[in-house]
Amino acid sequence: MDAVLRQSKAMCPFLKKTTPATLRALSTSTRPQASQCGGTISKLQLLGQRCPVMGKALAIQSARVGCKASAPMVGASAVRGVRTLSGHSKARIHTSRPKEARAVDTPLFAPRESVNFPPAAPTNRKANANVAAAVTTPSGSNAKFDYSGFYEAELEKKHKDKSYRYFNNINRLAKEFPQAHGAKKDERVTVWCSNDYLGMGRNPEVLKQMHETLDEYGSGAGGTRNISGHNKHAIDLEETIAKLHAKEAALVFSSCYVANDATLATLGSKMPDCVILSDSLNHASMIQGIRHSGTKKVVFKHNDLEDLESKLASLPLNVPKIIAFESVYSMCGSIGPIEEICDLAEKYGAITFLDEVHAVGMYGPHGAGVAEHLDFEAHQQGRPHGTIMDRVDIITGTLGKAYGCVGGYIAGSAKLVDTIRSLAPGFIFTTSLPPATMAGARAAIEYQMEYKGDRRLQQLHTRAVKEALDARDIPVIPNPSHIIPILVGSAELAKQASDMLLNDYQIYVQSINYPTVPVGQERLRITPTPGHTKKYRDQLVDVIDEIWTKLNIKRTSDWVAEGGFIGVGDADAKPSQPLWTDEQLDIDYQVAQEIKASQAADGFMETLLERETRDAARSVRAAA
Amino acid sequence: MDAVLRQSKAMCPFLKKTTPATLRALSTSTRPQASQCGGTISKLQLLGQRCPVMGKALAIQSARVGCKASAPMVGASAVRGVRTLSGHSKARIHTSRPKEARAVDTPLFAPRESVNFPPAAPTNRKANANVAAAVTTPSGSNAKFDYSGFYEAELEKKHKDKSYRYFNNINRLAKEFPQAHGAKKDERVTVWCSNDYLGMGRNPEVLKQMHETLDEYGSGAGGTRNISGHNKHAIDLEETIAKLHAKEAALVFSSCYVANDATLATLGSKMPDCVILSDSLNHASMIQGIRHSGTKKVVFKHNDLEDLESKLASLPLNVPKIIAFESVYSMCGSIGPIEEICDLAEKYGAITFLDEVHAVGMYGPHGAGVAEHLDFEAHQQGRPHGTIMDRVDIITGTLGKAYGCVGGYIAGSAKLVDTIRSLAPGFIFTTSLPPATMAGARAAIEYQMEYKGDRRLQQLHTRAVKEALDARDIPVIPNPSHIIPILVGSAELAKQASDMLLNDYQIYVQSINYPTVPVGQERLRITPTPGHTKKYRDQLVDVIDEIWTKLNIKRTSDWVAEGGFIGVGDADAKPSQPLWTDEQLDIDYQVAQEIKASQAADGFMETLLERETRDAARSVRAAA
Repeated sequence: MDAVLRQSKAMCPFLKKTTPATLRALSTSTRPQASQCGGTISKLQLLGQRCPVMGKALAIQSARVGCKASAPMVGASAVRGVRTLSGHSKARIHTSRPKEARAVDTPLFAPRESVNFPPAAPTNRKANANVAAAVTTPSGSNAKFDYSGFYEAELEKKHKDKSYRYFNNINRLAKEFPQAHGAKKDERVTVWCSNDYLGMGRNPEVLKQMHETLDEYGSGAGGTRNISGHNKHAIDLEETIAKLHAKEAALVFSSCYVANDATLATLGSKMPDCVILSDSLNHASMIQGIRHSGTKKVVFKHNDLEDLESKLASLPLNVPKIIAFESVYSMCGSIGPIEEICDLAEKYGAITFLDEVHAVGMYGPHGAGVAEHLDFEAHQQGRPHGTIMDRVDIITGTLGKAYGCVGGYIAGSAKLVDTIRSLAPGFIFTTSLPPATMAGARAAIEYQMEYKGDRRLQQLHTRAVKEALDARDIPVIPNPSHIIPILVGSAELAKQASDMLLNDYQIYVQSINYPTVPVGQERLRITPTPGHTKKYRDQLVDVIDEIWTKLNIKRTSDWVAEGGFIGVGDADAKPSQPLWTDEQLDIDYQVAQEIKASQAADGFMETLLERETRDAARSVRAAA
Repeated sequence: MDAVLRQSKAMCPFLKKTTPATLRALSTSTRPQASQCGGTISKLQLLGQRCPVMGKALAIQSARVGCKASAPMVGASAVRGVRTLSGHSKARIHTSRPKEARAVDTPLFAPRESVNFPPAAPTNRKANANVAAAVTTPSGSNAKFDYSGFYEAELEKKHKDKSYRYFNNINRLAKEFPQAHGAKKDERVTVWCSNDYLGMGRNPEVLKQMHETLDEYGSGAGGTRNISGHNKHAIDLEETIAKLHAKEAALVFSSCYVANDATLATLGSKMPDCVILSDSLNHASMIQGIRHSGTKKVVFKHNDLEDLESKLASLPLNVPKIIAFESVYSMCGSIGPIEEICDLAEKYGAITFLDEVHAVGMYGPHGAGVAEHLDFEAHQQGRPHGTIMDRVDIITGTLGKAYGCVGGYIAGSAKLVDTIRSLAPGFIFTTSLPPATMAGARAAIEYQMEYKGDRRLQQLHTRAVKEALDARDIPVIPNPSHIIPILVGSAELAKQASDMLLNDYQIYVQSINYPTVPVGQERLRITPTPGHTKKYRDQLVDVIDEIWTKLNIKRTSDWVAEGGFIGVGDADAKPSQPLWTDEQLDIDYQVAQEIKASQAADGFMETLLERETRDAARSVRAAA
């Protein structure tokens, strides 16, 4: 710490009580606002402009350098100040960010292109400004704001950084699952990236329930839950969800985005001095909920218990704390250490907020998610008491992925749920989901509570595809879940590979680019389902192999040569054991040994699946 | 302005540049957070605690008065300071708020019980604290936070101020519209408060479309719009919506709550120095969106053009401004002056954001809303260019009310829509609506574009009920729309009346209490539909008359005697002309004159409707 910083600290009570780490975090996290003079402002700048002493000084200084003293600009020199004080350049601070996968992030919060501060004088402005050129009106401050120019400039930025999104028109066919048609009804495309993981969207029991409810109760709820939109479908669905997670109560929202946003925003804003500790890979909905709460947010490194504990330990015991995290992180397939986080929560007086969005329907004997899966036996025997799931305070889930419908929910204690029900505007002031949707979702949950065959087969297909890709030297980011993220490492190549898959081979796999994942970690994200039988799997693996050659995309061995990257080709990385064990998947030990010994050309998983298909056909014949 | 304030202004740059009006607004608008010592904090307190000078001083002061120096408390004395400075008590500031109807507000933003500042010392704490008693743990700061106690205290507050909500289990029957069953399937209840204003929820064309889509494309979209959730249903629906509003493009969201929230938050946070001017009765979704934008919000008095203009005029011309308002305000039925607001927007370089949630399907020759209705002829003739609707920049609407399904949308220029599509996390990171929902909603919009009979009949029934209630001296808050708000003026009586309607007469009308409307303005909100035929209307009016007598609720004449209240019994109030004119409703002038002359015992509207029914039956017989 140099003399300048010491001197500043002596003068300014804010600097005195703020740690260098916090100052660094404040100066690198940007606020979603572009100033008229181009660029974005950091949270530190924002604080600076709120300071009655600095705010004024900064405004004068900004005015001097030739720009209108507008709010986002006045703090510009604050960052410069910190950079000088701490002796680090802004660029260095940025590169110190750990190179872990940022599964999801919002464009609002994504770091922007590096910009020059303070903004240059008018003569030099064009070179520095991103938005400025387009939104600054020609005749100066007497002209009206150019809204159209602003939209254009925002879109231009997306085009420039390759994050502009083109949506693919994909119409998944219930009767030809996992096939879809595109813009033309007679084309066929195989969908390999849907979150309808189990094909419940075409489940006959779900559809029957929906048809009947549609006829009996119509197409919509017709009101909010408080005004004519509360009905037996809502009551039954919430009861079923509570039962699924062995909680006292549950509450259904328009989506799990809304559920996460509304719940975190409400708790964070209502609990006095609340601190929310958030995994660095948390989904946009949680990031927004925390932001909307207006309360203190502490980000801990992805799945890093040590980092989490040190952050918990630094907070007073009596302060309310929420640890927000996920069970399955959707873009990399990693799994949160739920039990250990519950231990820490208990130790430090926090509550746990677990997003099981990508896990409900998929894990556990009843499909309640990873938390249930971790005590497979106990839950199978109907003894939830004292289990990990029992210890989690708030579980959130979706009805729109493995359950094949739409909507989201929270489950927890009766008091917690009643509090959110009573206080969250995102719940209170919105039309209820349609009766048919709620009835269908309930049927889907109940179906999956009774029958584990779909998620078992989904896991077997996942293993088979991972094994086959591995055999072809295709780089799958290792993980214990049902997600298959294939590393590409270039936005352009990922888009090209995705387009080639669709246009040349009628296979739909969306490329995942920045800002959903960080630049350099672009990938194809594949999600097998029980409907992806051998012919589809074989085709997928062959085609990916071909495209990898055609586009000259790095293979696992290339990453190994580079010393590994985010788990791919990393010599030190522990092998990733799937969460579903052989035993849980009813893989017979003897049979497995036999297949392994035979060294089948098709690979272990494909041979196992082939045997299973053959045995099933045999028993059907025998029964006939 | 007294000496103390002058002195403070000389010292503090913040006070120097802030007007007394802003200080007053900051000190009365509360932040959604209860401090451990009870009560809430104002925005001024929040600013105070961010001030490096005051923040520290306040923390020390708060610590001295016997409470932990927690963030929400440190600003406590800031409010006291302002009260001293301005010479007004907090209570007086509160009562200076105009007594207009606050149609919607969120519990988060609602004014709380008046609390004593600064919080009293521990010995005296119990009497002052609301939450404190329950959430403060017995063993002091070394104990963990009592989450369960916190939930309990929050719920207790809702019970105490009578804002705790009990949901009614109402199952609207598609084949017996407007009837429903309650918890028991063989009961029957007549629903008089649904937002399925036109009964589209049971429209055969909508249901057919939904059944077919369900069978062909399944129950869910299976992904976000970017990842496998984009399809022809989304494309077609957005095209239809754009066509409906004669805009270049449209974008569909999970709900209009999300549409409003996401759009305002995105624009407000992205446009440099943006100011959002918001009608004081705006819906919670807009209030939240503005709050989430983090940008400057200026509230103008409900439908007050003079106030809006003075606020617009006070802002620099080149600063981006959004005027956010509604066409039909749902809890009082008032209608926004759209054309005049467009004029002001043009004059001051603002854009207009118009929420037509309660108007789409209900007004205009094609059901596009009030903006379309104002140029009825032009739109009927397919000439949207230069109309008021054409001038509105952003229109938002719902698929969940008059269109009978679920979901919301925005419509506007292609660039605007593409910007929101590309930047709004609430759109990007959420599962698309199910194909069947989108197909059904599109069918509903197209049906209403072609056929105006439903909304015409809805208006006739509204007129008939308003006329009949007026004849019985029942106080309807006057308005030009399809909403019938009956003034009760007491939370307890409103709840009693609603319960009595349901339990004794099998009529469902939800009571509307605080915080949806201000205390003292509690009401029953009635929404007729085309299905509310004479027998239902007669029953409703008779029963309400009876209940008004039984519960001794004030009648119009009582309000007149008191000098009138929010438009009821107000001698100075101009008579409210319905937005749908006689001509637009195809009421024959000659017939109307005849009926008026006959002084029919049943009243004008009932006689007219009776004649219409008779004539219709006659022409059916003639055709047979």
